Amino acid sequence: MEKPHTLWSSAELRKVGPPPVYTGERLAETAFPLGGMGTGCVSLVGTGGLRDWEIFNRPNKGSIMPYTFGVLWVRQPGRDPVTRVLQGPPQPPYSGQGIGSFQGFGFGVERTNGSGLPPMRTVTLGGAFPIAEMTLSDPALPVRVMLEAYSPFIPLNADDSGLPIAALNYTVHNQTGEPLEIALAFNLFNPLGYPGSGPFMGPHLGQNLNSYHDDGLVRGLAMTTSKVSPDHPAYGTMALMTTWPDTFCQCSWLRGGWFDALHDFWDHFSRQGTLAPRDLGPSDDGTSDVGTLGLRATVPPEASVTLPILLGWHFPTFIKYWGGSAGCDRCDCERPRWRNYYASQWHDATEVVHYFAANQQRLHDGTRAFTKTLLESTLPDHVLDALSSQASILHSPTVLRLEDGTFYGFEGCHGDGGCCEGSCTHVWNYAQTVAYLFPSLERSLRDADYIYNQRPDGHMAFRLQLPLGSPMSDFHAAADGQLGGILKVYRDWQLCGDDAWLRRLWPKVVKALEYAWEQWDPDRDGVITGIQHNTYDIEFVGPNTMIGSFYLGALHAAERMALHLGDTERAALYHTVYERGRAATEDLFNGEYYIQRAPDDPELKYQYGEGCLSDQLIGQWFAHIVGLGHILDPDHVRSAIQAVFRHNWRTDFWEHANPQRIYALNDEQGLLLCSWPRGNRPRFPFVYSDEVWCGIEYQVASHLIYEGFVDEGLAVVKGVRARHDGKRRNPWNEFECGSHYARSLASWSVLLALSGFQADAPNRRLAFAPKLASDPFGCFWSTASGWGAYRQSAAGWAEIRVEQGSLTLAALGLGTLSGTAAQATVEGRHYAAECQPVAGGCEVRFERDVEIGAGQTLRVALSR
Amino acid sequence: MEKPHTLWSSAELRKVGPPPVYTGERLAETAFPLGGMGTGCVSLVGTGGLRDWEIFNRPNKGSIMPYTFGVLWVRQPGRDPVTRVLQGPPQPPYSGQGIGSFQGFGFGVERTNGSGLPPMRTVTLGGAFPIAEMTLSDPALPVRVMLEAYSPFIPLNADDSGLPIAALNYTVHNQTGEPLEIALAFNLFNPLGYPGSGPFMGPHLGQNLNSYHDDGLVRGLAMTTSKVSPDHPAYGTMALMTTWPDTFCQCSWLRGGWFDALHDFWDHFSRQGTLAPRDLGPSDDGTSDVGTLGLRATVPPEASVTLPILLGWHFPTFIKYWGGSAGCDRCDCERPRWRNYYASQWHDATEVVHYFAANQQRLHDGTRAFTKTLLESTLPDHVLDALSSQASILHSPTVLRLEDGTFYGFEGCHGDGGCCEGSCTHVWNYAQTVAYLFPSLERSLRDADYIYNQRPDGHMAFRLQLPLGSPMSDFHAAADGQLGGILKVYRDWQLCGDDAWLRRLWPKVVKALEYAWEQWDPDRDGVITGIQHNTYDIEFVGPNTMIGSFYLGALHAAERMALHLGDTERAALYHTVYERGRAATEDLFNGEYYIQRAPDDPELKYQYGEGCLSDQLIGQWFAHIVGLGHILDPDHVRSAIQAVFRHNWRTDFWEHANPQRIYALNDEQGLLLCSWPRGNRPRFPFVYSDEVWCGIEYQVASHLIYEGFVDEGLAVVKGVRARHDGKRRNPWNEFECGSHYARSLASWSVLLALSGFQADAPNRRLAFAPKLASDPFGCFWSTASGWGAYRQSAAGWAEIRVEQGSLTLAALGLGTLSGTAAQATVEGRHYAAECQPVAGGCEVRFERDVEIGAGQTLRVALSR
Repeated sequence: MEKPHTLWSSAELRKVGPPPVYTGERLAETAFPLGGMGTGCVSLVGTGGLRDWEIFNRPNKGSIMPYTFGVLWVRQPGRDPVTRVLQGPPQPPYSGQGIGSFQGFGFGVERTNGSGLPPMRTVTLGGAFPIAEMTLSDPALPVRVMLEAYSPFIPLNADDSGLPIAALNYTVHNQTGEPLEIALAFNLFNPLGYPGSGPFMGPHLGQNLNSYHDDGLVRGLAMTTSKVSPDHPAYGTMALMTTWPDTFCQCSWLRGGWFDALHDFWDHFSRQGTLAPRDLGPSDDGTSDVGTLGLRATVPPEASVTLPILLGWHFPTFIKYWGGSAGCDRCDCERPRWRNYYASQWHDATEVVHYFAANQQRLHDGTRAFTKTLLESTLPDHVLDALSSQASILHSPTVLRLEDGTFYGFEGCHGDGGCCEGSCTHVWNYAQTVAYLFPSLERSLRDADYIYNQRPDGHMAFRLQLPLGSPMSDFHAAADGQLGGILKVYRDWQLCGDDAWLRRLWPKVVKALEYAWEQWDPDRDGVITGIQHNTYDIEFVGPNTMIGSFYLGALHAAERMALHLGDTERAALYHTVYERGRAATEDLFNGEYYIQRAPDDPELKYQYGEGCLSDQLIGQWFAHIVGLGHILDPDHVRSAIQAVFRHNWRTDFWEHANPQRIYALNDEQGLLLCSWPRGNRPRFPFVYSDEVWCGIEYQVASHLIYEGFVDEGLAVVKGVRARHDGKRRNPWNEFECGSHYARSLASWSVLLALSGFQADAPNRRLAFAPKLASDPFGCFWSTASGWGAYRQSAAGWAEIRVEQGSLTLAALGLGTLSGTAAQATVEGRHYAAECQPVAGGCEVRFERDVEIGAGQTLRVALSR
Repeated sequence: MEKPHTLWSSAELRKVGPPPVYTGERLAETAFPLGGMGTGCVSLVGTGGLRDWEIFNRPNKGSIMPYTFGVLWVRQPGRDPVTRVLQGPPQPPYSGQGIGSFQGFGFGVERTNGSGLPPMRTVTLGGAFPIAEMTLSDPALPVRVMLEAYSPFIPLNADDSGLPIAALNYTVHNQTGEPLEIALAFNLFNPLGYPGSGPFMGPHLGQNLNSYHDDGLVRGLAMTTSKVSPDHPAYGTMALMTTWPDTFCQCSWLRGGWFDALHDFWDHFSRQGTLAPRDLGPSDDGTSDVGTLGLRATVPPEASVTLPILLGWHFPTFIKYWGGSAGCDRCDCERPRWRNYYASQWHDATEVVHYFAANQQRLHDGTRAFTKTLLESTLPDHVLDALSSQASILHSPTVLRLEDGTFYGFEGCHGDGGCCEGSCTHVWNYAQTVAYLFPSLERSLRDADYIYNQRPDGHMAFRLQLPLGSPMSDFHAAADGQLGGILKVYRDWQLCGDDAWLRRLWPKVVKALEYAWEQWDPDRDGVITGIQHNTYDIEFVGPNTMIGSFYLGALHAAERMALHLGDTERAALYHTVYERGRAATEDLFNGEYYIQRAPDDPELKYQYGEGCLSDQLIGQWFAHIVGLGHILDPDHVRSAIQAVFRHNWRTDFWEHANPQRIYALNDEQGLLLCSWPRGNRPRFPFVYSDEVWCGIEYQVASHLIYEGFVDEGLAVVKGVRARHDGKRRNPWNEFECGSHYARSLASWSVLLALSGFQADAPNRRLAFAPKLASDPFGCFWSTASGWGAYRQSAAGWAEIRVEQGSLTLAALGLGTLSGTAAQATVEGRHYAAECQPVAGGCEVRFERDVEIGAGQTLRVALSR
């Protein structure tokens, strides 16, 4: 187990520090999603510009909305004004990208994003999702600019975290001893009618109208169209507004040929720092207008002003652009459609912007509180980076909210569409972030699955068909997805303690297990057999611990739930099968790790056989997360997870021959899905076996930590993040089968493992068991009722601060602290408690329930 | 005029050295075209792989033909073999490119080009067009590999320079003291049926057949299809062959799902260094096969073997995929088509490869001789780089040869189509390379223009319509194109001395000037007026020297031709108008440079007025090239060209606001098309005015040198080439309105200016007047009869070596040497000569014509 140390020292792996700041070449690939959950997003890229306009109800990678950028004008007394586009210099290559007509490769750097205008020479991009922080400066400018860009993201508050808005706060700091006149012009193209992907210019345009709006709270440009009717999928509204009082507004740029419009804008604004009003009414057919909202200010010497830009959108109708009947590929008319959840909350983009402005402080503070709470942990910086950066998947087009509010996820994103559909149960098995930050949304996933995706015989489809209620697929059940679902029900119930919810789903869970018996364990010996479709898009055949550990975990969780619900007969049955299976499964242990017992059939492709599969203990990992403990022999499990690291972790890929997809290469680090250290690699091993998947890396990293191999787990996480360094790949886009791949939401499980966090809401109990020696140790925690910060010290104390929501506790597990007595207070109020030693730590039990409200802290002091 | 010196010293600007070698990040954008003139090409990219398959009768940027790459297997006695794909490591970014279905952005590094297989760690790309030279090495390999890749390119030999073939010679050097077994596997996908752009996989495939071919001279894979008929535009053949005797061949890779085929290839070849034969017959509908040609060798200790790979293609039918009637955009059935010239020479790809192999030594030596002759000059290395790299345009898809052999050029290339059509007269005005290297092809351009592009009234369309004989466009004549045409006739006649040819075109030239009078100089005062469409795609109105200098040059050239043809009346008339115009045009000189006298009309857009236009003396530049001397006041001309450099050359672009297309930016150097140093920039200046065009830069650089501002001219050239450094842009693709833009063929005029080369074939006279002080001075020269090297020394001697062809000389101008007597010999044979001093140099006149044959050298020794 020396491998991680050849790259990084233990100290490096445990370094606590601020989030990464991207500069220079490491800005090239950065793109930070701005937008709410289920609203789509637009990304702030490393230059400071906006790209990837995915607000039109589908992914839209690489898209650049014409002339949509900010420009800053600064006049120092007695000098000529200096004007800069609020973007850094474009990075090489400079030949242009893609195939286009008079654009793209061979036509030079993209110009419609303002790249030809004088840039800010130096740009940095930092912050942590959900808040991006940029600095922009230029030797010719007497100011520094700081941009804070975000969309509200507040754990447990799904609706406020689902606003179709991006807030861009430009703080301009005067570095001189004189007052400066400044003006910020923000331009927005009116794209309404846009079909969601492809060129912004085209016949879909026309009747686009930019109007000035001022309701006293916000003012700026309201964009509408009358070309399509309100129920048309391309219908929508946009708003470019500000709460700043001193503004100017040009609703329509000059309508002219060639480059006239941008010439006119630049020549006037760069000279005068303002634009004359111009309102030309609705655009002609096939065209649209750019409008400018300007903010003016005088910045006192050595002082700052913050100029807020609010970009809201509202595209109410979601069309199911994928699948459908043959021959109807190009025709939208017959395709199912539904309204976005946010469209049930808001009438148009201006209303969204108004609501945001009216609640700005609260939304900002809540979002900041999340980031601050997460970052003030003592977790290694690259772990926090993994947690926060991948939470951005929730603001990406991977995520939808259906009309009734149900959370829905693609696996990831094609360049211009979801990939693949249906809240895929096996991919979303890995994801933990939603369950812990937005538990009600996670439960809506369970609900949808058991309502719409289960046949009467218990067979569960693994892709939810839209609109809800559409016929299920005929395909195999996914063994991992079906069995993982039961562990997810258990987890979600543990987090919320909602017995009624559990009781509602329980018969479905029972059915799901019954189907598993019929399909994969007809003799109920607890060992999985038969044809097991799974997350590798193929079918494993024969006993293996990847599906087997899910099965054991599901049986164990089901037993617990049955007991709680008083279904003792089933509990006993599950227990029996579980115990049989635990014992029998050890036959798959080869002395070092668990193998697959595949049938001896030369025609059978895509198995792993004697390979060392990274996912071989995924059910055990899940069991740890939900507090089920070891479901297989602990020594074997530790040996096996070590073997996964030993054999599958690569400190470089120079010698790795991979005919499959390439997610790690050259000098990078990563964890292979499988290897065959003892030979006998099948002629055609299971597809993807030579690949490296971030989501599996987080799963294994978390599991390594659970088993005590902390350096190894941290090394795996560091490897993932090093691959997403802003030059190689986008830090806010871990892709697999497409961008913003949901499997990376497994990163949250690294927090769970490092903190040893356990929620047992039904019993009003929390527990922590940190795996890091930092003293004090601090981390973020969350349940369905509240979230906040946890701290503990080996000196014998622990604190739980509730940042938002509340927490009711009957007991608190302190897995690494020792004590025989405890004193507990909440904001000065004492709670009687007793403290009992348990293996490795202690358990504090309160005489009466402790109630911790928002902003309050429970302090527990231990003594011996 | 200090500006160039702030960046580069005079010594740096005059540095003589080898061509650039690209390494590391500077390989990222490199793509070196391989293919003949008018055959399309495929590019060798900086990794060592092949990309941009533009062999299918249209541009096809970014295209990757699946699984088409080379792999090297090496076995050292007693060790495990080492296998490497013959490509360097892929460069970041690693997210994938473009929008695709399960590919592109979000799906990782492109895999079908072998990027997932172990690469050669270190790669360099050097050489000079037409011969690329790569080195590939890897710490695990006991060999170094040198790749020589080229397609024949031999001045004056248009047909051998138009072979649809790429030769890849891999020289493997054994670095050990033991013999090594090696095997080179080269894989080629059978793409036949491919429509020329878009995905290689698709319904166009099927009935693709790979067969083994061995005719004693060459052996390997012959690729055919029986899905489309031989007259179908997608019909064609390919050949992957070698002259190497020890080969193996797998006609068809395994047909399997997922990644099976590449797994099978890699697993077998990497283990055994060979592949079992497999021939599965024609492919199934919608699919095709990859085939492998393998070359085996034993490399003696410390020795090398060279393994030749020949890749031939033959796609006989060119379809006019652009333009056409509305509604027929998607339908190929009605589109005009014709056969490529090469299809009239060769029956199929195998025949091409056979011919190449049979003539390999001659083709190789001729191509090497060109490169060697060019590089052994004493011209600065960046100038040689500009000359050779841009000659690659001739091997790019910008160039076609029509069925009758006529040379045809687009302006440049869209990603997947020509851009724009018709051997555009105003863009090709700038191009000089073809005229000097393939004069017969250049004359075919003249022929086509005057036959097909001139109306009876002399109005010339500036875009030749295909197929030849199609109706002309109704649009404006291009004033620069129409007038430049006359200078080009003069140049081409000077180079070939073919009076019959001149006589044939003469009535057309007369008509062209008559139209110019009617249209642009009704009062025949020699000053251009009226509406002048031009290369900026707009119309200048009123007197200006951009069109005006073309006009004066055309009048002067026409006078010379008229005199030669005995048309003294016209000669006198042209002379009168020319002299009137010369005088009157000086009214446009503003004391520093020449301006435009635009009408005072506020509605009139897109003029330059008082601007300092880089092209303001383009006709004067052309007059220098063809030896017409100063057509405007020499002092004014020198002042004006200095002003162009002073005002338009930028050592960086940080403060440059450019709403137009972006061809130079940030820290780069470049020459703006125009600036307004004295103010009065029009509200809407002519389009493109803020841009930087390589072709105009070469034109101005050449002109600066002609006028004696050598450092300035060299700085401009260095600026262009620095922008094409392999990281920012491709050194072999200077683009403007698309890739491989023909205007960059103006680079040849830098050689003409630096050498002061003049050909006067009608009078059997050559002249040189070097602008560089290097002693000896050496350069490349060419006429329509021969080409070779020129050297001279201030010690009083000069040498003309004829590399190919022959040269007959009655006189030799030595513009910078002095003498009163001369001794001349050709290979020991004496020629009596007299020597007369002329301004700044001398002129040697031979008593009888000197005949210099291929391989011979004329030596002239001067004395006083």
